[in-house]
Amino acid sequence: MSLLVVGSLALDSVETPQQVRDDVLGGSATYFSYAASYFTDVRLVGVVGDDWPAEHTEMLRSRNVDTAGMQVIAGGKTFRWRGKYLTDMNERETLELQLNVFGSFDPVVPESFRNSRFVFLANAAPKVQQRTLEQVERPQLIVADTMDLWIRETKDDLLQLLKHVDGLVLNDGEAKLLTHEENLIRAAEKILTLGPKFVVVKKGEHGALLYTEEGPFVLPAYPTGAVVDPTGAGDSFAGGMMGFLAHRNQADPQTLRQALVYGTIVASYNVEDFSLERMKGIEREDLDHRLALYRQMMIF
Amino acid sequence: MSLLVVGSLALDSVETPQQVRDDVLGGSATYFSYAASYFTDVRLVGVVGDDWPAEHTEMLRSRNVDTAGMQVIAGGKTFRWRGKYLTDMNERETLELQLNVFGSFDPVVPESFRNSRFVFLANAAPKVQQRTLEQVERPQLIVADTMDLWIRETKDDLLQLLKHVDGLVLNDGEAKLLTHEENLIRAAEKILTLGPKFVVVKKGEHGALLYTEEGPFVLPAYPTGAVVDPTGAGDSFAGGMMGFLAHRNQADPQTLRQALVYGTIVASYNVEDFSLERMKGIEREDLDHRLALYRQMMIF
Repeated sequence: MSLLVVGSLALDSVETPQQVRDDVLGGSATYFSYAASYFTDVRLVGVVGDDWPAEHTEMLRSRNVDTAGMQVIAGGKTFRWRGKYLTDMNERETLELQLNVFGSFDPVVPESFRNSRFVFLANAAPKVQQRTLEQVERPQLIVADTMDLWIRETKDDLLQLLKHVDGLVLNDGEAKLLTHEENLIRAAEKILTLGPKFVVVKKGEHGALLYTEEGPFVLPAYPTGAVVDPTGAGDSFAGGMMGFLAHRNQADPQTLRQALVYGTIVASYNVEDFSLERMKGIEREDLDHRLALYRQMMIF
Repeated sequence: MSLLVVGSLALDSVETPQQVRDDVLGGSATYFSYAASYFTDVRLVGVVGDDWPAEHTEMLRSRNVDTAGMQVIAGGKTFRWRGKYLTDMNERETLELQLNVFGSFDPVVPESFRNSRFVFLANAAPKVQQRTLEQVERPQLIVADTMDLWIRETKDDLLQLLKHVDGLVLNDGEAKLLTHEENLIRAAEKILTLGPKFVVVKKGEHGALLYTEEGPFVLPAYPTGAVVDPTGAGDSFAGGMMGFLAHRNQADPQTLRQALVYGTIVASYNVEDFSLERMKGIEREDLDHRLALYRQMMIF
């Protein structure tokens, strides 16, 4: 089924303990779209400046990502992030953040996208996410991402948004911050009282937790010995998850579990190289192959 | 089969964000023994002072823990630890450490214990662990625990010990410290080159990793909403694991996986109350019941 994503398109500069890359393709909607494209067509809404290389748009189109919702602001500059991963790769520092055209992003959902059945609101100000919702017709499933900044600065807006979403995806620190609960299970339970029917807590190299009215589903991360660049892990996870749900056209607890597993697998590939490079080198069959290995690693 | 543990017996004072307990039963060998006692008889070697309450010894005996190897030092004081857990419960501060009689612990394995088939060397100086090994006759399986202190201060002794053990149990930070590898899979691979045939990396609330020549086995922790006191989680995990292996009288990769699962389940109970209180309230059937729930939480 149709899958819409609204989020950032960026040019990233990334420093890891081993290597450096400048001005590579990044952004939440970019990682998400590519990851989802293994499973379904994607409709993308975002904004870039006229410094945005056309080849990135072409590459996304080649993956059946419909870029009709991409605004190009003449004279504007694309969102840029520069970051540095510390030795243990779970911690990173933002060295520079230029919101540029993303700072005044006002999403416009093209007419042809308004009937999208699956909607993912990638990380953005809750009011921006809300404006997207106002432009779509009764989707079957709405899932939102968020981050600590919005929880701290615009919590009322976020709580308002949560009343209108089916699922929330966030990391463990954010779940604790949002609920003032240090225990993740209790934090997840509390989030379900705020509106969402399910919450996905991303724990990076420690896996993920899905919480629904049926209780918890827990997953370790795929244990990879080759983490090169963690950027986009959460967004590729969400893309794999939502892509699978849209492909299967349902979001019952059992399908959600499988979707989390595919998200885990896509993310495990994504971190094996900079930008989208590793994802570009694999196909759906690779995901299924690694999923089979992963299953083996958990059998007892 | 016969299971021997050599380690600390302690009186702990524990402060959590909610509650405080003074002079409660603690120590690695204590938690280990109780956890293993769900599966098998245990032979305990340790040392206490004459301040040690006799009721603790009686309680262990009531669980078929043979305390013939417990030295009571007249005029000596029992090992005492005082610690405080911070808000997120994954971090703790040691407020006071009195090694007392454990500081000069020279383990003496009673004649009747020397034929033990399964041996667990709980956390102690590698030279102390080594002295235990010199007193046992060709065990079937030797597993050692260690900690950052020994890796930093007595690494040569530890490397010497590792040549003589089948398995090593340690936490993620310690695995990285020992191998200078930030990636856990690479750290685990490196540990296998040091002697052990398997390594178990404990990640607290993030689960555990088993690495053998067959590759990784990954487990999330049992998601509990009721963490009261994490003290002894690692030791009760090891006790559940070794108890199960001794009970099954084998340690092939498949049995090791099941043993890690039982370790995970015992530890998940242990953290639900102070000291050994929660473990005292459950039986083997409770472990199997929770294991069934845990399995459900991972099915996809």
